[in-house]
Amino acid sequence: MEQTFDIKMFGKNLRALRKRKGFSQEGFALHAGLDRTYVGGIERGERNPALKTILQLAKALDVDVIQLFRSS
Amino acid sequence: MEQTFDIKMFGKNLRALRKRKGFSQEGFALHAGLDRTYVGGIERGERNPALKTILQLAKALDVDVIQLFRSS
Repeated sequence: MEQTFDIKMFGKNLRALRKRKGFSQEGFALHAGLDRTYVGGIERGERNPALKTILQLAKALDVDVIQLFRSS
Repeated sequence: MEQTFDIKMFGKNLRALRKRKGFSQEGFALHAGLDRTYVGGIERGERNPALKTILQLAKALDVDVIQLFRSS
């Protein structure tokens, strides 16, 4: 059965992309203009970012926003 | 130059998918468990839905969430 994409998978994608781009959590947060604890919360699937924040994350990662929604 | 995906494009995708699925705005809002004026606001790019709402919209449309982020 196919798994439905959820907020935890979004967080895992964010973490994987951030690491792939060579950012520490702190460095990425600074680069993205977001608080480090907020970024950590998103990565753990504990925070529920709004669309504009999601687009901001994709821009800071320099990836297509679709990459954050991959089910892999 | 490639256009960056923005909140208005998200709204247009939502509207196009809703219509393709044969939902009126009111019928879709009821089906998705959201307020009709809120759905209208998202479609016009005036509201900034959170990730959980975005996933709820995709589920109600029975589409992969990636469909809402297509740049077409």
